[in-house]
Order: sequence, then structure tokens, then C-alpha cells
Amino acid sequence: MRYAVLGTGVVGRTIAAKLATLGHDVLVGTRDPQATLARTEPDGYGNPPLATWLRDHPQVRLATFADAAADAETVVNATSGAGSLDVLTSAGAGNLAGKVLIDIANPLDFSAGMPPSLNPVNTDSLGEQIQRAFPGVKVVKTLNTMNASIMTAPAQVPGEHNVFVSGDDAEAKKAVTELLHSFGWPRESVIDLGDITTARGTEMVLPIWLRLWGALGHPEFNFHIAGARRTTA
Amino acid sequence: MRYAVLGTGVVGRTIAAKLATLGHDVLVGTRDPQATLARTEPDGYGNPPLATWLRDHPQVRLATFADAAADAETVVNATSGAGSLDVLTSAGAGNLAGKVLIDIANPLDFSAGMPPSLNPVNTDSLGEQIQRAFPGVKVVKTLNTMNASIMTAPAQVPGEHNVFVSGDDAEAKKAVTELLHSFGWPRESVIDLGDITTARGTEMVLPIWLRLWGALGHPEFNFHIAGARRTTA
Repeated sequence: MRYAVLGTGVVGRTIAAKLATLGHDVLVGTRDPQATLARTEPDGYGNPPLATWLRDHPQVRLATFADAAADAETVVNATSGAGSLDVLTSAGAGNLAGKVLIDIANPLDFSAGMPPSLNPVNTDSLGEQIQRAFPGVKVVKTLNTMNASIMTAPAQVPGEHNVFVSGDDAEAKKAVTELLHSFGWPRESVIDLGDITTARGTEMVLPIWLRLWGALGHPEFNFHIAGARRTTA
Repeated sequence: MRYAVLGTGVVGRTIAAKLATLGHDVLVGTRDPQATLARTEPDGYGNPPLATWLRDHPQVRLATFADAAADAETVVNATSGAGSLDVLTSAGAGNLAGKVLIDIANPLDFSAGMPPSLNPVNTDSLGEQIQRAFPGVKVVKTLNTMNASIMTAPAQVPGEHNVFVSGDDAEAKKAVTELLHSFGWPRESVIDLGDITTARGTEMVLPIWLRLWGALGHPEFNFHIAGARRTTA
């Protein structure tokens, strides 16, 4: 399968590396590939410059958002939530049309300092905004409720835990569930919450996720729905 | 210990019954005890009228919000979120002052139909609103992330799962943690998220909780934070 991963941060790199390891064709999309490659300093989170990362992942190629999306069968939105709609517009509605868009972004709003709030929130979600802005795309919201390190290596968190999918297209959710399975998620750990409006629910767990990170002192945890399979009638 | 449980719905009844079973003095507070006792029909959720319930729980007595709060050492807010501030005002700031207030309410807003949204949300929470309105009270938000049936019988959900506490007063959180332990919660299942602003996080899990109820077909589940105790360095 040919994938475009939009975004060069930790989430984008984690997903792109895993997809390449699984034998998929992977283009990572960025606004200006030359500018991205010219950076020689670590990013604000201490990650090495992308040029260094690409040298370690020779199967992954860099392209503009539009070229990456045009070439792909499935597109992954791994950009920051505040920039996602702009990035997808750059990628081009025509290049996205008819494709599955795996939306991992959260609409964190840092404008009033820490902890961030969400925007949109409550009566709307980023997943819904993307679906409305690109009606020809099959948006599946998933993986946005956990640290990047867990997305493609769920076994690093001990015991059972869950990943959620939200979307309007049943076939697209089925395909994404299979992809999650290839990432290491047992099929029974994938919970289909319903249509894309259920993305409100998964985006709105970010506030407790951030506070749990603070309280526990590390982000290597994940949500498990205990009792999901009712054991008594 | 003398408890006031404000609210006569399922949550209030569940907490009051458990407290009485544990040997505590329990007054259930309602706006107008005579009117409450005069009702002979089930409530909107099919629960029997309170008079019937009280006959089955003879240790529990009914009082006005103010009388219940005045008599209590610890107060439980088990009212609907939209009415909580009004109920607490009726209970009386003087009757609440210096006491621990266990806030179980969620600010669900049904004004735009189903599913409900939250109000307040995102940059505020009901827990914080109550703490600001009653600065002399030690508000501890807890138990608001699960079905009432699980609050006082956690073992009915198989495996490990968690209950969260949020509040500004460390001693109050410690006392509430001991109460939760007496309800059947292992101490290690209680996660202290931090100050009362972390109530935003627990209130904002309601949207995914409601969608999980729909997706799973039953409400007898609870959140477990897998990997909370980091197993590797």
C-alpha cells in the first residue's frame, strides 16, 4: 500500500517508520521539503533534524504535502491539530478525494498557556471539521488518545488496553482496524465508537491524558476499558 | 461519620445506601422532603419513588438540603450538574464551610438534545465552579467517570480499573481516598490527578463514556490506566 504521512514530528516519524518496516511505500509530506532538509538543529522537542532521521530510514522519502497525497492510497494526518485544516488544504482536496484519511491529530490550543485547552471542543471536533471540509475523504479518527511510542508498539504497555476508531465509513474503519492489527493491536482491543462525531469523545480525553502524564510522571500509559465485554447477563 | 447526600437520584441512593451499610449516619437532602415523599410514581428513569426506597433503607433519613448539610461532617453532591450550584446555595455556605464536599456531579447539558454536551467545559469545570462559589469548602471531585452501580461495588467490573480524585486540599483527598477504600476500591486504584482544575479532565471523559455505553451496549465498564506504574526505567 502507498501511504502519505503528513507531518514530520514524532507522530509522523513513528507512523512512517512503522509503515516502512511493514513493507509499505511511504512518502512523508512537509510544506517545503528543501527547507525541512536544510534544518540542522533538533526541533523544539529535542528530536534530531529530519535529514538525520531520513538517513536512518532510507525507505522513507520526503515530498510536498500535495505530492505525497497525490501519490498515496491512504493518507495519515500527523500534523498538529491547529494546523491540520491548512495542511490538508495544501495537500489538495483533489489529491485526497475518495481516500482513507487516518486522523491522529488533536486540536490542542496553547494560546492561553499550559495546560492547553481544546479548540474545537464539546459540540464539534477536529475530526468532524476535517470530514466537513473534505466530504470526499473517508476520515477515520484513531490513535489520538496515547503517546506516539505506543501507537505502533502497543505491547510496550503491559496488559490489555484499547485504541478507538471513529468514522462514517464502515469499510474505511475496517481497513484501519486491519492496519492497527498490523501495528500490533489485537483486533479485540480496537473499539469502534461509531460515526465521526464520536471523535469529540476521544479528543476530549486529552485533558485527563495530560494530567495523568503529570500525575504519573511518564506518558507510557494507555486507556483500557475494563468490563467492556460484559461477563454477566 | 455523619454524611449528607444531596440528591435523591440513582447516584445519591447508591452512595447513601453504601454509607449506611458501612455504619455511617446518613441524611439524604432534597429540596422539599414532603413533596419528595408524596410522590408515588417511579421517576423518569424507572426508579421507584423515594418513599419506597426509604422504606427499604430505614437507617437513611430525609431532610432539606440545609438541614442535611448542617448536620453533616462530610457532604456528597449527587445532584445533576446543571442544578448543583443552586442546590449547594440552598444547602447554605455556612452549613458547608470547612467541610469536605465530595462532588460526583457532571455538568451535562441536554438543552441541544442528545448526546448532551458539557457546560462548563474546557477552560473551566463544575468542580472548579463549586470550589470558587464556596471557597470555605474542601471540594474533592471523584467517582464521576463511571456508572453509579460501580461506585460502591468496584469488584463488579473484572480486573484492575481506576477512580480519580481532584482537589486542592491534600487532607481532604486523603480522607476521600480512605472512604473509597471502604467502598471496595484498592488504594492503588485511586489516582490523585492534582488540584481541582484537573476536574476538567474527568468531566471531559463523559463524552467518550456516553459513546462507549452506546458502542458496548451496557454501562458496566470503567476506565483503567494500563501502564500507570512504569515497569521499565
